[in-house]
Amino acid sequence: MRSYAIIGTGALGGYYGAKLQQAGLDVHFLLNTDYEYVNLNGLIVESPTGDFTLPCVKAYNDTAKMPACDVVIVALKTTHNYLLPKILPNVVKDDGVVLVLQNGLGVEEEVADIVGADRVIGGLCFLCSNKVAPGHIRHLDYGEIKLGEYVPDYQVVGISERMRQIKSDFDSTGIPILLAEDLLLARWQKLVWNIPYNGLSVVLDALTDELMADPHARVLVEQLMQEVVAGAAACGRIISDSFIQKMLDYTVKTKPYRTSMKIDYEERRSLEVETMFGNPLRAAQKVGVNLPKTAMLYQQLKFLDARNSQKK
Amino acid sequence: MRSYAIIGTGALGGYYGAKLQQAGLDVHFLLNTDYEYVNLNGLIVESPTGDFTLPCVKAYNDTAKMPACDVVIVALKTTHNYLLPKILPNVVKDDGVVLVLQNGLGVEEEVADIVGADRVIGGLCFLCSNKVAPGHIRHLDYGEIKLGEYVPDYQVVGISERMRQIKSDFDSTGIPILLAEDLLLARWQKLVWNIPYNGLSVVLDALTDELMADPHARVLVEQLMQEVVAGAAACGRIISDSFIQKMLDYTVKTKPYRTSMKIDYEERRSLEVETMFGNPLRAAQKVGVNLPKTAMLYQQLKFLDARNSQKK
Repeated sequence: MRSYAIIGTGALGGYYGAKLQQAGLDVHFLLNTDYEYVNLNGLIVESPTGDFTLPCVKAYNDTAKMPACDVVIVALKTTHNYLLPKILPNVVKDDGVVLVLQNGLGVEEEVADIVGADRVIGGLCFLCSNKVAPGHIRHLDYGEIKLGEYVPDYQVVGISERMRQIKSDFDSTGIPILLAEDLLLARWQKLVWNIPYNGLSVVLDALTDELMADPHARVLVEQLMQEVVAGAAACGRIISDSFIQKMLDYTVKTKPYRTSMKIDYEERRSLEVETMFGNPLRAAQKVGVNLPKTAMLYQQLKFLDARNSQKK
Repeated sequence: MRSYAIIGTGALGGYYGAKLQQAGLDVHFLLNTDYEYVNLNGLIVESPTGDFTLPCVKAYNDTAKMPACDVVIVALKTTHNYLLPKILPNVVKDDGVVLVLQNGLGVEEEVADIVGADRVIGGLCFLCSNKVAPGHIRHLDYGEIKLGEYVPDYQVVGISERMRQIKSDFDSTGIPILLAEDLLLARWQKLVWNIPYNGLSVVLDALTDELMADPHARVLVEQLMQEVVAGAAACGRIISDSFIQKMLDYTVKTKPYRTSMKIDYEERRSLEVETMFGNPLRAAQKVGVNLPKTAMLYQQLKFLDARNSQKK
């Protein structure tokens, strides 16, 4: 039985970790502010697929006390990645792997610098959940994870045996796992949605349905998506026009959605501006491609993020 | 003695009209909601250059009752320009002139369509004043007006006799008047300030000093200024880099400023998005020049303006 470490037991890490433990896997949860509460009381998950409680979990607030695990799931906000050099070396087995479930671009490179490029897998989550109280996760919708092997320069290496092993663990939880042959393509595809909706939801204080109902905002969303596709092309990844159309149609069809960045902004948490906007912009610029509207969104978010943190 | 009509007796029209009457000119004020109050009580002007009261003014709420005047000052917000075809024909003498004291681009063309191109002069105001109550104007700072003759296609025609006559009237009020040889250049120059600061002050809910203190917002301001300069160049008008630097330095030096568009937004008035952003964008696009960040600001403002008007 593979062991799992959950680095960051919040809305995302708490949900996936609890599902893995419920399915019978050996899961170790790293916590910070909620450590004492969860150590005493365990985790509660509310979900449309069934509520459940784990009265007893292996909780830690110190990586020195954690065992080295087969799979280490990084579920921190990228704004906390400065903590990873202290955390990761202790918790991953020599033949283990770090699964980076974070947004944006370049996050695997950061982790590879710490644990070595041969021990990194990237993952993209399509999950809608919130932490509503210490150790209390409310799962609202979705949950799928797309996995992809990381190698330096994001070369395409296809599907590995260890990806299949992780998939089989998640299969037992009921969480759908997709295996991607090309991690970088998967990351740019997710940015096609994340950049316009996360950015504009904060700057314009809007839910997705408001953005789609206004003709000017909707055109802007589409233009930003086209810029992201141009950025992907600059990095050698082709995303079709029909993918943009699919994202627009999908957003219109789903219920009004408050993006994760808007939730962070309203709760005065730091925004993931650098990984979600800064890194894609720099990757495109490196090969001479400018994305002016994405850059403007980046500038606006940096301004708002700085002001938000001053108000704390 | 030349007669003046003031179309729109608000913070701007009320101030200039009161100063002209105080200097002894024959001034006729068109009012809407404040008509009864001003007709009974006159106008009050508070100003660092001296407070004064005009207990008796020639107030009108019906253009049919107004005399045709030598100089008709259009001091409405451009969002009310749909009223001009009914107003202007009655109030301007055959050999009179309409002085358009409005923001943005293309406003003279609208007026020329109504009264003929030979009866239009454009003007740009550098004025900081508010209407604080009916007939009560608080002048805070500045006041200078830059005048320029309008001819079709904004050809450069230099300084006319009637510009000098208007200047001499204003000279008697103490309000500084500059005479511009090239109205279109003057309009684009003013947009170098207006587009970044008016737009970003609304979208980012910020005063000028906050924008200048944040490194990302400040770079964005400068990039928007450079786009406006590119737009001017597309229309054959050259604005130097040193002009941009002058605007930046000037803004840093002046006290924190709430732009007119931000005031309009907070008071839930319609924003002058089309004349200040839409018309410059279309003028540049007509000759194949795109201004992507200005266009994004336009799209964001259109979204915010539409939502603001729904909340009324």
